[in-house]
Amino acid sequence: MQDHITPRRVVILGGGFAGLFAARALRKSPVAVTVVDRHAHHLFQPLLYQCASGILSEGQIAQPLRAVLRRHHNVRCVLAEATDVDADARLVHARRPGGGVVQLPYDDLIVAVGMRQSYFGHDEFAAHAPGMKTLDDALDIRRRIYRAFEMAETAANDRERKRWLTFALVGGGPTGVELAGQIREIAGHTLDREFRRLDPAHARVLLFEGSDAVLGGFGPALAHRAARSLQHLGVELHLGTRVTDIDAHGLTVRDRDGRTTRFGARTVLWTAGVEAPPIAAALARATGAEQDRAGRILVEPDLTVPGRPEIRVTGDVMSLDGLPGLAEVAMQSGAYAGRSVRHAVEGRTKKPKPFKYVDLGSAAYIARGRAVVKAGPVHLTGFTGWLAWLFIHLAFLTGFRSRLGAVLGWSVAFATSSRRERACTMTDTEVPAARAVGPKTSPPS
Amino acid sequence: MQDHITPRRVVILGGGFAGLFAARALRKSPVAVTVVDRHAHHLFQPLLYQCASGILSEGQIAQPLRAVLRRHHNVRCVLAEATDVDADARLVHARRPGGGVVQLPYDDLIVAVGMRQSYFGHDEFAAHAPGMKTLDDALDIRRRIYRAFEMAETAANDRERKRWLTFALVGGGPTGVELAGQIREIAGHTLDREFRRLDPAHARVLLFEGSDAVLGGFGPALAHRAARSLQHLGVELHLGTRVTDIDAHGLTVRDRDGRTTRFGARTVLWTAGVEAPPIAAALARATGAEQDRAGRILVEPDLTVPGRPEIRVTGDVMSLDGLPGLAEVAMQSGAYAGRSVRHAVEGRTKKPKPFKYVDLGSAAYIARGRAVVKAGPVHLTGFTGWLAWLFIHLAFLTGFRSRLGAVLGWSVAFATSSRRERACTMTDTEVPAARAVGPKTSPPS
Repeated sequence: MQDHITPRRVVILGGGFAGLFAARALRKSPVAVTVVDRHAHHLFQPLLYQCASGILSEGQIAQPLRAVLRRHHNVRCVLAEATDVDADARLVHARRPGGGVVQLPYDDLIVAVGMRQSYFGHDEFAAHAPGMKTLDDALDIRRRIYRAFEMAETAANDRERKRWLTFALVGGGPTGVELAGQIREIAGHTLDREFRRLDPAHARVLLFEGSDAVLGGFGPALAHRAARSLQHLGVELHLGTRVTDIDAHGLTVRDRDGRTTRFGARTVLWTAGVEAPPIAAALARATGAEQDRAGRILVEPDLTVPGRPEIRVTGDVMSLDGLPGLAEVAMQSGAYAGRSVRHAVEGRTKKPKPFKYVDLGSAAYIARGRAVVKAGPVHLTGFTGWLAWLFIHLAFLTGFRSRLGAVLGWSVAFATSSRRERACTMTDTEVPAARAVGPKTSPPS
Repeated sequence: MQDHITPRRVVILGGGFAGLFAARALRKSPVAVTVVDRHAHHLFQPLLYQCASGILSEGQIAQPLRAVLRRHHNVRCVLAEATDVDADARLVHARRPGGGVVQLPYDDLIVAVGMRQSYFGHDEFAAHAPGMKTLDDALDIRRRIYRAFEMAETAANDRERKRWLTFALVGGGPTGVELAGQIREIAGHTLDREFRRLDPAHARVLLFEGSDAVLGGFGPALAHRAARSLQHLGVELHLGTRVTDIDAHGLTVRDRDGRTTRFGARTVLWTAGVEAPPIAAALARATGAEQDRAGRILVEPDLTVPGRPEIRVTGDVMSLDGLPGLAEVAMQSGAYAGRSVRHAVEGRTKKPKPFKYVDLGSAAYIARGRAVVKAGPVHLTGFTGWLAWLFIHLAFLTGFRSRLGAVLGWSVAFATSSRRERACTMTDTEVPAARAVGPKTSPPS
């Protein structure tokens, strides 16, 4: 029974898909929801690569959390980074951007902090090879891609020019594949006739992947088709390779036979792995919960932390039955957690059914007119896959007022190969120090 | 007579309005044009404040220079910052972003480097009060405006909350007035119902101006109407004041009677003055040209530097008959310089007519439905002025493929008060060091 004077306090850590869907599920409950995020916006992460490649603007893939939740009168948004949980006192400690601490007492805690880029212990790679998890990452990558062509145009010699025209992507999951396709399209179409001393179409795109296949999660048949599409686009695949070193001028990889090869490349982008932000470890310490190798929290079938029925973990940072880190899993688990709290508030005593993920399919965009889509037994590739991709993304962007703008951006990009959002700063020569150590000091919360 | 083997080399420093119009005027000439800019984009500066306030995206006000000039087959774009001119050897020295030097020999030099923000000798103000000259400035201001409300929401006490909700603008020219109007609109409309612990409409906007009037350049009648519009919007005008100190918590101003007053304000924006970038002084040293107090180069009536008929200065950095630093002056002087070179290439020996600026009018946007427009004897204010503003800007954006997007952004902003491009990073707590010393070390070129 809720107390009618102070409503039950639900603190949601993270305003991504999981956090947003949890908050929405509580819309009509007499609870006081606090959504804590270190970013003020909700990010439509599946389209982040399109922001990086200049098709969409930041505003088209990110909306202020409090604008999205404006009509949710029981929700308060707090811009802060969760740093610790006191599970006995039921208190979250968070840090405000400019310094200063916020303490948030809760009756229910929903953890939806997501994952961040992992460099597998090589955090020094981050300075040379940005990841693709935040809006800042996307803008940094946008700058690096377009600046590379500018630098190639004024290169002092052929060797330097070739290095600027070589792009290396580490990681053959959807993000790496999508970025590789984007760079080849930019080189082959977008920049057509813009340069006088080089042909952008000569740009090399190298994709390094540790396993035997790109898009391994889509199964062997689709992975094979995706690899063929990429090769057709001119992407050079290096499967079964591990990156052993990255610096400002290139990277070194080792293949399965132990041979190491050095590749000159002034642009290296990293999408190879993820790890849980430090707040996950803090939660594990506070509750005795177990973490998997990447730091995800192992949860019960009802998404609660063992022995702490008031704490639920959702989205990418949740470890349950090997569910993948997909937007759809985040949405469904977030909504499940929100509903569970609502049922508890409503006084339902029946034990809830375990969380069951309904696989609505997954999609990866390779290039204009090419995508792979997997929905249960249905496998789509090529142009059919691309149409399905378009339909799915239009449907999911519905909640966004930016849909019209996105359609406009896509129309321009697909019809003319030009990109409306190429503007970026070219003056920075290196990643700012704060970014370089980002993965260590600024976890998402 | 041009040499048919190596065409006459025209180097244009700067890709703003003046540089772009100079390049366009040379489109059909048998010359080799090189446009040098430290930014890769051409910026539609009159709408920069709308990018800062979240109405337009970067791509809607900035387009890659080389995309704009793609069909100008005699134009080459170079991303570099001009650092020196050797007038005898006819050589420009420029620095590439990552280091490295480019040397550009010229037969004709067109200087169109624009002006940068001036802090009147107080460069230390820059860290606390960003200017509004570049795309970076606009994104920094966007971040500061929206973050201020976020910080106010979690402020520890009323005093801190008030400081976060107080915005100080230094400079009552068009940019200061436009920003003041934008912040009041954001506070009063855009953020409506988004906060739980504060009412954004309570935000104070203070506008400090050294002279007796805002928009003094528009004449006393329009200036008076503009002041009334601003006051109606809730902007507090402090005329006849000089800023003597700025820190992270506020600013100190002195009025004409010598009284100093301290205002608490966590957001201070600076639009008070401009100065020439260092390349102007280098040019003056190299040619013996005179500079005015702000560093502009004094030119002959045909825009050439005295004694150097092959060097022309155009746009904001040109000093001629007290012409103001307006986009229209830049366009006309740039086009004039380009035409002069074309005529010389064509072998016309007649001395060109002096440059004559045709005043097509100027406009300043105050708020939704309010603008002031001055076109010769025609003075427009209020809604009529706003319609004229809309028409003028639509007409001038024509060259931009982004016009449709801008119209979309405006429709949303004007019809619903919401802003599509609010997404920005909130994590930075201070201006990066590189930005803070920006006015000293990174002049536009």
